[in-house]
Amino acid sequence: MLSNTRIIRVQWGDCDPAGIVYYPRYFEWFDASSILLFEKATGMTKIRMLEKYNGAGLALLEARAVFKVASQYGDDIQVETRVTEFRRSSFFVQHTVKKGDVLALEGFETRLWTTRDPADPMHLKSAPMPGEIRASFNRT
Amino acid sequence: MLSNTRIIRVQWGDCDPAGIVYYPRYFEWFDASSILLFEKATGMTKIRMLEKYNGAGLALLEARAVFKVASQYGDDIQVETRVTEFRRSSFFVQHTVKKGDVLALEGFETRLWTTRDPADPMHLKSAPMPGEIRASFNRT
Amino acid sequence: MLSNTRIIRVQWGDCDPAGIVYYPRYFEWFDASSILLFEKATGMTKIRMLEKYNGAGLALLEARAVFKVASQYGDDIQVETRVTEFRRSSFFVQHTVKKGDVLALEGFETRLWTTRDPADPMHLKSAPMPGEIRASFNRT
Amino acid sequence: MLSNTRIIRVQWGDCDPAGIVYYPRYFEWFDASSILLFEKATGMTKIRMLEKYNGAGLALLEARAVFKVASQYGDDIQVETRVTEFRRSSFFVQHTVKKGDVLALEGFETRLWTTRDPADPMHLKSAPMPGEIRASFNRT
Repeated sequence: MLSNTRIIRVQWGDCDPAGIVYYPRYFEWFDASSILLFEKATGMTKIRMLEKYNGAGLALLEARAVFKVASQYGDDIQVETRVTEFRRSSFFVQHTVKKGDVLALEGFETRLWTTRDPADPMHLKSAPMPGEIRASFNRT
Repeated sequence: MLSNTRIIRVQWGDCDPAGIVYYPRYFEWFDASSILLFEKATGMTKIRMLEKYNGAGLALLEARAVFKVASQYGDDIQVETRVTEFRRSSFFVQHTVKKGDVLALEGFETRLWTTRDPADPMHLKSAPMPGEIRASFNRT
Repeated sequence: MLSNTRIIRVQWGDCDPAGIVYYPRYFEWFDASSILLFEKATGMTKIRMLEKYNGAGLALLEARAVFKVASQYGDDIQVETRVTEFRRSSFFVQHTVKKGDVLALEGFETRLWTTRDPADPMHLKSAPMPGEIRASFNRT
Repeated sequence: MLSNTRIIRVQWGDCDPAGIVYYPRYFEWFDASSILLFEKATGMTKIRMLEKYNGAGLALLEARAVFKVASQYGDDIQVETRVTEFRRSSFFVQHTVKKGDVLALEGFETRLWTTRDPADPMHLKSAPMPGEIRASFNRT
């Protein structure tokens, strides 16, 4: 299944007074990495993808991170992102973060394909992930 | 003219490896403080105010801060915000940040009342600030 | 066991293009809420507490959030934080976030009391949570 | 004089409910860009540079941005950073941000080389910028 890898240079402002990455930053990187994975799969930005398939978003049900080794200003960390499972509407994203060969942390997101209820556009509801999007992940 | 004052407790995650506030955070506080001032003046949230007056936003033309004394985790800083001048469309906001009696920094924003062009809703254009909004600042 | 509750007004800049809170912000609020709980328990800032007890930090092992209802700019959310269990070195923090009477999300952090290795100050190691700190949570 | 250019892909989470970049993000990018410029000039990370030259930091005296054109999720913006003037202790940094050929915004920082007062390590004071650092900017 398709994966997306990117290198992030840890900046001074990503770190806290202990000199290590302020942990909410990792979730910023996870959120962006999930979107970048869908962009890579579909060849569209998130906004275009939502428009084309009448989606309202990739709603987050759960986010989790398990921390092993801290990172500091100046470190280059590698974030590898993949969907580990597609269910009907929901799907599971895994982010593996390495510093060199060392596993620094792992992140997990459970998300849901949602659409707008035509009768009540403010109300989102889960919907089956469009087959075309799902199929676009079956590339090398 | 109306002003709005709020106390912000500096959190651990607001600070950088030098132990002082990471400076973009001040601009986050300035942006929120400007909105809170308009809420206080008009008695409406920003979204309601924009809807009522057909506005598109308080577009930022310029932002500036002059730093005097750094702040650290645990400090309580007081941000006092006021509009120093209304012109036809633009207006000037000043944020005075004190730590106790000491002036820690000052912030300045130049903003513009904008509306959507009916012929091209993606295009924003400046418009005269509605008189009712302007008048709402003339309270004590 | 002691808990700490605070109200957070969701600001414009806390929200994403979908108009709802950008989820890493919740983890910023969780991190600050955990620290505020320890401040309330011990009567000391985090820095003073670490100095007094020769601690190096409240190292994060795992962070997790389960999302129920999204929040928007202008919402007031209530974050209630408590330690649900102290083990020898590790402890579990729970954050319950409500919007009015509605459960909006829950957050969970697993953390570890750490000290510096005198032989190698760059190396942190887990250590038993000082009894005085633990006892300070047994207040109403 | 040396300059540093980097491309930043605007992420979903960098944007606000109006769909444009939340302006404090630009200052995050400016801060990181200034540090990256010094890294490029000296061949050292900020921390190593401060250690080698007994510096305490690149203290910020003033930050300013002038906004021309907003950017959105998915845009690639190019940030070009240079020091426009070195004085004895202070120096001026300019950030030119383009979206394609269009000038999107300009940023300006006034910073100060600081050292620690040996008699009072908590007190920073301005000091002449080390000649070696200054000279390192005279490369193409």
